Amino acid sequence: MKTQVAVIGGGPSGLLLSQLLNKNGIETVVLERASRKHVLSRIRAGMLEWGTVELLREAGVGARMDAQGYPHDGCYLSDDDEIVHIDFHALTGKQVMVYGQTEVTTDLYAAQDAMGTTIIHGVEDVEIYDLHEAESYVDYTLDGVRHRVTCAYVAGCDGFHGVSRKTIPADVRQEFERVYPFGWLGILSETPPIADELIYANSKHGFALASMRNENLVRHYVQVPLTDKVEDWSDARFWTEFKKRLPTHVADKVVMAPSIEKSIAPLRSFVSEPLKWGNLFLVGDAAHIVPPTGAKGLNLAVSDVHYLKDALIKVFKENDLSGIDGYSEKALERIWKAMRFSWQMTTMMHQFDGEDSFAAQMRKATFSHLKTSETARRDLAQNYIGLPF
Amino acid sequence: MKTQVAVIGGGPSGLLLSQLLNKNGIETVVLERASRKHVLSRIRAGMLEWGTVELLREAGVGARMDAQGYPHDGCYLSDDDEIVHIDFHALTGKQVMVYGQTEVTTDLYAAQDAMGTTIIHGVEDVEIYDLHEAESYVDYTLDGVRHRVTCAYVAGCDGFHGVSRKTIPADVRQEFERVYPFGWLGILSETPPIADELIYANSKHGFALASMRNENLVRHYVQVPLTDKVEDWSDARFWTEFKKRLPTHVADKVVMAPSIEKSIAPLRSFVSEPLKWGNLFLVGDAAHIVPPTGAKGLNLAVSDVHYLKDALIKVFKENDLSGIDGYSEKALERIWKAMRFSWQMTTMMHQFDGEDSFAAQMRKATFSHLKTSETARRDLAQNYIGLPF
Repeated sequence: MKTQVAVIGGGPSGLLLSQLLNKNGIETVVLERASRKHVLSRIRAGMLEWGTVELLREAGVGARMDAQGYPHDGCYLSDDDEIVHIDFHALTGKQVMVYGQTEVTTDLYAAQDAMGTTIIHGVEDVEIYDLHEAESYVDYTLDGVRHRVTCAYVAGCDGFHGVSRKTIPADVRQEFERVYPFGWLGILSETPPIADELIYANSKHGFALASMRNENLVRHYVQVPLTDKVEDWSDARFWTEFKKRLPTHVADKVVMAPSIEKSIAPLRSFVSEPLKWGNLFLVGDAAHIVPPTGAKGLNLAVSDVHYLKDALIKVFKENDLSGIDGYSEKALERIWKAMRFSWQMTTMMHQFDGEDSFAAQMRKATFSHLKTSETARRDLAQNYIGLPF
Repeated sequence: MKTQVAVIGGGPSGLLLSQLLNKNGIETVVLERASRKHVLSRIRAGMLEWGTVELLREAGVGARMDAQGYPHDGCYLSDDDEIVHIDFHALTGKQVMVYGQTEVTTDLYAAQDAMGTTIIHGVEDVEIYDLHEAESYVDYTLDGVRHRVTCAYVAGCDGFHGVSRKTIPADVRQEFERVYPFGWLGILSETPPIADELIYANSKHGFALASMRNENLVRHYVQVPLTDKVEDWSDARFWTEFKKRLPTHVADKVVMAPSIEKSIAPLRSFVSEPLKWGNLFLVGDAAHIVPPTGAKGLNLAVSDVHYLKDALIKVFKENDLSGIDGYSEKALERIWKAMRFSWQMTTMMHQFDGEDSFAAQMRKATFSHLKTSETARRDLAQNYIGLPF
């Protein structure tokens, strides 16, 4: 099979790239290890920066998001019973959109189907070859049979565990990592949200996040030790702990309900440089992971997609290599700023076992500066709604 | 001897407090361990926040500062050859004033002399008693004879090593500390400044600060290991290292000259809470130390003085205890914000031996965010020129 761009990974970033390229007359083949059903069963982030919203519209997949998504004008941060409201709209003129990643992926599949693009599920043993030749190859196994995609470029959208990053020789890659000493236990539950906007709550008991998906579906999290297992957390224990971490008058509004999903994810910052190796481009989680505090994961993948589709359009339409040659540097500049923001939000909003009292005071002083400085709130808001592409 | 307020320490904070109280009809006795000559020989900071400038004017000691000081509209931060200009005036409408602490102290002595206030030099073995009684006592030895000052309140302006903080029982105090793994080697040299504003320079060789006192007097610093001694640093070595750390085109402007003073100071963040114990109030370095990055030390002592003189005026003139009862909390709120700013500037602008590559990237990303975000620059500027009292 021959195509212009082989896209490894059929999650939201691979699909969005494929969608934008095809809309611009560039042909793709998307290879995905899992079944479509499996991809759509993953519960992921649900907060879209306005730049993401606009790119989804440009990709022609904005209709259901605009009809069913929830634009949010701000968010709350709390530290025990103290609350700071970050008014995104007043501070930046922009909003964010609550719309689940699963919904984005659903819309992208539908749009790709309507365009008749090629998405192959269930591929195994993907191998990428000849990345420094005019033509590159992606080999894979499907139903026991080996296949080959011949292409000009390969987009590695296959996540942290995917083959794309590992295809770049180790001596070419530089990796940066910070592992945080805690994870997030998340539940999905059919109960009304406790506030009109998200609440990021720090407290002496640890961090909690109250987020929502719709009028009767919430996604709530609590900070847990890395050694905890999902089985350690009954619904009753979760709700008790969750309420302890919210400001008292907010906790009083919590309506407990059974969880319909429960999982624990560790928190990590990770970047692998460069994002380009010959004809291969890394996108999203394949190259970088942020802790979820500040909701940058999906949005950062989308900004990579934005830069890469511009670069690929330039090379295919104008035979101009400058975009792809500059992709890694351009994408990384924004990535590092989002890494910084996510690291800073994570540091400010969590309890760190064994931290010294000075570090704890620096956290409290950061919060207290946010309370009294509109400039500090604006800086947070500008980062949260997304730095410009 | 009887007075209303005994001021322990005749450095700039003790003298300024005494000056402001006497101007408001409140009597003081200032007790200073060193001679006046010794106090005036100390080379210290030279950057005044605008709030400090205004309080010095209010104290009646602004004339020489206004005539001889250098208002600065901004400063430069560099990271190797990259430079960011922080335009205080454009970002905040305010300036800072370059005017040495020694000059401030000289002006305060002159003003106190003119008012005929009591400043006793050479006192030893100061002891403070009966801080929870209606009258408190400060005993000291002068020329081998024991003396006593009877007073309503005691202001502890005697620095980190002074007796005031240690008079508060250890089980009442909470101390917070961060020791940085480096010091600053500073020189004073008669040569023209290399720029119209201060340059805080980070580089792969470490930190340097180019600051000035007048058209032919500079105060320059380089980050050095804590184990270094002044004897390890010839003038030639200093200038070579200093130039390596500045952006190339700035380093080219350096005109080397002999040092007329050279010293090494370790960098430390320290806070002791509370600032009030009975009739004793801690002011400035007696309660808190900041690393010099960002020039907060003297300015923070001045904001303590501002809060304390308001509080003491209230109690003596209106018999209203609310000011002195709230002094510790009020002063600490601003102190912790300045601690945060100084810690953040120190972290961003130095090389830390053994730091992991992720931490180094976070430093670079903070710098890069400053370069592209006017909001981030405004936040820095608002902190640098001084948060409101």
